[in-house]
Amino acid sequence: MASSKTVRKLQVASPVPADIDIANSVEPLHISEIAQELNLKPNHYDLYGKYKAKVLLSVLDELEGSADGYYVVVGEITRTPLGEGEITQYPLGEGKSTTTVGLCQALGAFLDKKVVTCLRQPLQGPTFGIRGGAAGGGYSQVIPMDEFNLHLTGDIHAITAANNLLAAAIDTRIFHEASQSDKALFNRLCPPNKEGERSFSNIMFRRLRKLGISKTKPEDLTPEEINRFARLDIDPASITWRRVMDVNDRFLRKITIGQGPEEKGMVRETGFDISVASEIMAVLALTTSLADTRERVGKMVIGNSKAGDPITADDLGVGGALTVLMKDAINPTLMQTLEGTPVLVHAGPFANIAHGNSSIVADKIALKLVGPGGIVVTEAGFGADIGAEKFMNIKCRYSVRALKMHGGGPQVVAGKPLDHAYLNENVALVEAGCVNLARHIANTKAYGVNVVVAVNMFATDSEAELNAVRIAAMAAGAFDAVVCSHHAHGGKGAVDLGIAVQRACENVTQPLKFLYPSDVSIKEKIDTIARSYGASGVEYSEEAEKQIKMYTRQGFSGLPFCMAKTQHSFSHNAPTGFILPIRDVRASIGAGFIYPLVGTISTMLGLPTRPCFYAIDGDTATGRVLGLS
Amino acid sequence: MASSKTVRKLQVASPVPADIDIANSVEPLHISEIAQELNLKPNHYDLYGKYKAKVLLSVLDELEGSADGYYVVVGEITRTPLGEGEITQYPLGEGKSTTTVGLCQALGAFLDKKVVTCLRQPLQGPTFGIRGGAAGGGYSQVIPMDEFNLHLTGDIHAITAANNLLAAAIDTRIFHEASQSDKALFNRLCPPNKEGERSFSNIMFRRLRKLGISKTKPEDLTPEEINRFARLDIDPASITWRRVMDVNDRFLRKITIGQGPEEKGMVRETGFDISVASEIMAVLALTTSLADTRERVGKMVIGNSKAGDPITADDLGVGGALTVLMKDAINPTLMQTLEGTPVLVHAGPFANIAHGNSSIVADKIALKLVGPGGIVVTEAGFGADIGAEKFMNIKCRYSVRALKMHGGGPQVVAGKPLDHAYLNENVALVEAGCVNLARHIANTKAYGVNVVVAVNMFATDSEAELNAVRIAAMAAGAFDAVVCSHHAHGGKGAVDLGIAVQRACENVTQPLKFLYPSDVSIKEKIDTIARSYGASGVEYSEEAEKQIKMYTRQGFSGLPFCMAKTQHSFSHNAPTGFILPIRDVRASIGAGFIYPLVGTISTMLGLPTRPCFYAIDGDTATGRVLGLS
Repeated sequence: MASSKTVRKLQVASPVPADIDIANSVEPLHISEIAQELNLKPNHYDLYGKYKAKVLLSVLDELEGSADGYYVVVGEITRTPLGEGEITQYPLGEGKSTTTVGLCQALGAFLDKKVVTCLRQPLQGPTFGIRGGAAGGGYSQVIPMDEFNLHLTGDIHAITAANNLLAAAIDTRIFHEASQSDKALFNRLCPPNKEGERSFSNIMFRRLRKLGISKTKPEDLTPEEINRFARLDIDPASITWRRVMDVNDRFLRKITIGQGPEEKGMVRETGFDISVASEIMAVLALTTSLADTRERVGKMVIGNSKAGDPITADDLGVGGALTVLMKDAINPTLMQTLEGTPVLVHAGPFANIAHGNSSIVADKIALKLVGPGGIVVTEAGFGADIGAEKFMNIKCRYSVRALKMHGGGPQVVAGKPLDHAYLNENVALVEAGCVNLARHIANTKAYGVNVVVAVNMFATDSEAELNAVRIAAMAAGAFDAVVCSHHAHGGKGAVDLGIAVQRACENVTQPLKFLYPSDVSIKEKIDTIARSYGASGVEYSEEAEKQIKMYTRQGFSGLPFCMAKTQHSFSHNAPTGFILPIRDVRASIGAGFIYPLVGTISTMLGLPTRPCFYAIDGDTATGRVLGLS
Repeated sequence: MASSKTVRKLQVASPVPADIDIANSVEPLHISEIAQELNLKPNHYDLYGKYKAKVLLSVLDELEGSADGYYVVVGEITRTPLGEGEITQYPLGEGKSTTTVGLCQALGAFLDKKVVTCLRQPLQGPTFGIRGGAAGGGYSQVIPMDEFNLHLTGDIHAITAANNLLAAAIDTRIFHEASQSDKALFNRLCPPNKEGERSFSNIMFRRLRKLGISKTKPEDLTPEEINRFARLDIDPASITWRRVMDVNDRFLRKITIGQGPEEKGMVRETGFDISVASEIMAVLALTTSLADTRERVGKMVIGNSKAGDPITADDLGVGGALTVLMKDAINPTLMQTLEGTPVLVHAGPFANIAHGNSSIVADKIALKLVGPGGIVVTEAGFGADIGAEKFMNIKCRYSVRALKMHGGGPQVVAGKPLDHAYLNENVALVEAGCVNLARHIANTKAYGVNVVVAVNMFATDSEAELNAVRIAAMAAGAFDAVVCSHHAHGGKGAVDLGIAVQRACENVTQPLKFLYPSDVSIKEKIDTIARSYGASGVEYSEEAEKQIKMYTRQGFSGLPFCMAKTQHSFSHNAPTGFILPIRDVRASIGAGFIYPLVGTISTMLGLPTRPCFYAIDGDTATGRVLGLS
């Protein structure tokens, strides 16, 4: 029996009711009780209603000396072993988020461990589109489910506002530069005060430093220096910064802006991405403090000058304002599972073009709060190829530095034998599917971590099938492979998994290894990652070659890499021996990674003919949300 | 001496420091103390950090039987009596918001009255553009000023999300209708469940009712009924629903969307407005409950079918989802003034194209909380022409019904003798400016309310000038005219004003009168409003004539009217006897008003060459916001 005061055991029903009905059947605890159980004092957090609180980063200063807990990451095998075409058939909410939550419910409510779940904030857009929410599923969920899926504490809204302020600053600057002389521009940028004196604002010194100008008074600049300072001379064709929106609005994928008469013909083709695809979201996920956030957002590159030099948010004078817009978003949000264990929800960059993990600061706080012997469980987006690879090579590269972590945490791979569509026992098909699982295990083990396979059981799975998966997993080198049923039974269904994970934590023998060192060339890194997918080589488009030359010249080749590809399989289109085509190479300089594009990645989702929103309504008497799935 | 525990007296400095420095010099009280002073119990509100709380509408149910306090509205004279060209010279933060806050500080901290200030949430966009924030000014401010100006409790973000979800639903629906047969559309809208049975979702019954179809099972519909139900047949040229963003992004004023290859050539010209211009913001300001919000957002008209019938959010199946997105936004946000008196911040529709007042629900809650003898002070956007006119004829028309209010509250008109640019005494010029003031007083008195003129004193104003204003105000029929200095002295500088307002409240003799009845024709209403501006007649464009016919045919002519015009003067271009040109007529059916356009109204702001954001930064050590003005 757990000693925590906040955990509660569930009364489970069979068959498993709808997610929203389960979520609504439990009265959440006031979040201050959850906070108290974690030894957080009232000055460590800000309440956002009764069931959410933002944990302030300042708590890290107080806990600096204390030791960390164990660190576990949950990935999943490629979403369907039965072919990419069936991706929409895959029952969402039965994958890694559910396993992550279920495992924590087991650890906290049944195994008496200090545990914190670190999850990503879901995109709001798809909640109204195809898939519904992302709070886990069945009896393994974060609650209140509607607050988790909608608005949360406004972080994505803050990112949207900041991203779009920068976008507006870009077009406006080009517009003003087009119609003004150097002198007029300069005079407007440094207007006289009441006494008639001009001065540089603090942020302007960043640009002056970058230009190698050490003068501190506007009147001392030569005409040539004024030109270099005031005229960013942005090449419109080079602009990579797009606007964002947390709505599935496919008609904004490609648009022409500036068609109003006041914009004097300065039209330009651009588009909107879904908000989580913003580089600012990637910054939020990878930052380690407010000061670090300030530096990263200031360094974000929006495009080049006509001379080919990178233009940053700080060149546009807006890095400080972006930081101010993000100052609350930088604090993770505390919530709870159905069984009363704590959850930190924070960040959620679009895993297709970014690393897709929840934030480093949430992990840092969680590891201190659980302390030695406690366990922090987080998840890595998509399969072990892009999920775990990015988690290890991008997030851990930045966080290990921050956490001074020496041993790698074990990884849990959530898999399930078969798609629901296959209702009859088919052990051979399961064994064939396990080729994919074996590759995930091998790739993950290469980082020096223990791998525990969670075999999610469904009513239609036979004993023989479950056994086949277990045997295949152990043969592939898994530390353990455990059948679990947390979707149907909550934490109780993941107790064996919890015990296996705890053992795996206590038996870490190697330090964390990265797939590639930072200081090799861009092409060497891409080649190494491609080979880890099973590719025999890489083919670069002309555009990709050009971008690689440019980023190398601009001094960015030392950054980690983030393959931008679909989530559907290890390979682009074949299991091994294929040539990986790199269509283009882009960079998130502020967040700190370069991302080669493999094939076409859509960064703005769409709505189907009958979006989820048809079922969603508010009960106007109780204020309760209806129809969220 | 006030008996309230929360009020605090200010130590004022001279000359008056910068607004942000004053705001930062006072440590705000925990908002729960402010709430307690209002007799709010912890279950009546949700905390959002330490200094903001959302007051839940459910408090109204508990207070239903209790009596209301007095209701005072603060307007202002036209921003500069010295000509429209000088609008940018007008020192912001010395107008109606400052007077509203200063008056309340006087009533609460010096005159021992129960008082609540009801203010609009400011746009976030301009905070980074030209003007800085809008929390009042000098020693009459709402604090924390940065939280007031940035994000607040996320209401505008919620509006942005809801507005843009509806926009995405429109284009997606047109897209799906274009490529699918009636049957395919219908089958997708009503997909079979696991048992193979189709059903209508609740929201679909709204459309079925509108079409006069009383059948409840999808399989019972005839092909003709299926066609009418499933095919909205939206005329793209008729779409009035635009996307929104809370950023000054002028390049989005006119754009072409749908240019991606997947959108198959379905391009369309449209644009973005600033978020506060969304009809959903006007709904928020005018709604009286969550149930009323649900009905209003569902009724919002986005355009017409090709046959000329209005198409609503509920026709698109999205009214419930919009309500759910707005479910927290509907609760007003409690904050405090520099002197510890309570403030409710809620809504803030764009006064150029909407009525521009804070919300009815905030007023309702405030009137109950202050109780008999207590005073609620709110403000009306822009001058008495469009500010007070809209306040009376739109907001009060809806709220009087809701509040069952019989007497009109008095109005305070904030004015100042002269622009700072004129530093020498010039009584003649002041007297000339008072023609405008007299007109405001006369127009406002016509609603049956007492008018108190607040003459905001500046160091450069002479005794003779102040006297000239007082005399002119009394001659024009003001109940009282009082010189005040709350900008420099806080509540102490508005004690005389507070006493005058209290007297005016206790001496209301007439019921509130509207300028026009609801049930006259559209043209009669426009004519009445135009004549109140001093116009001798109205001239309609061809487009305006067409729209008036359409709205009359569609049954919307009974709505109140909201003149969409600039804030600069009573008249379009002349003091009296002019012909008011109506360029176009549009409607916010869900919010509940029709708005004729007088001249060109920009609904998306821009950024100057040196936006405010150059000065804004976060102190990364303390998290404090720097440079906000």
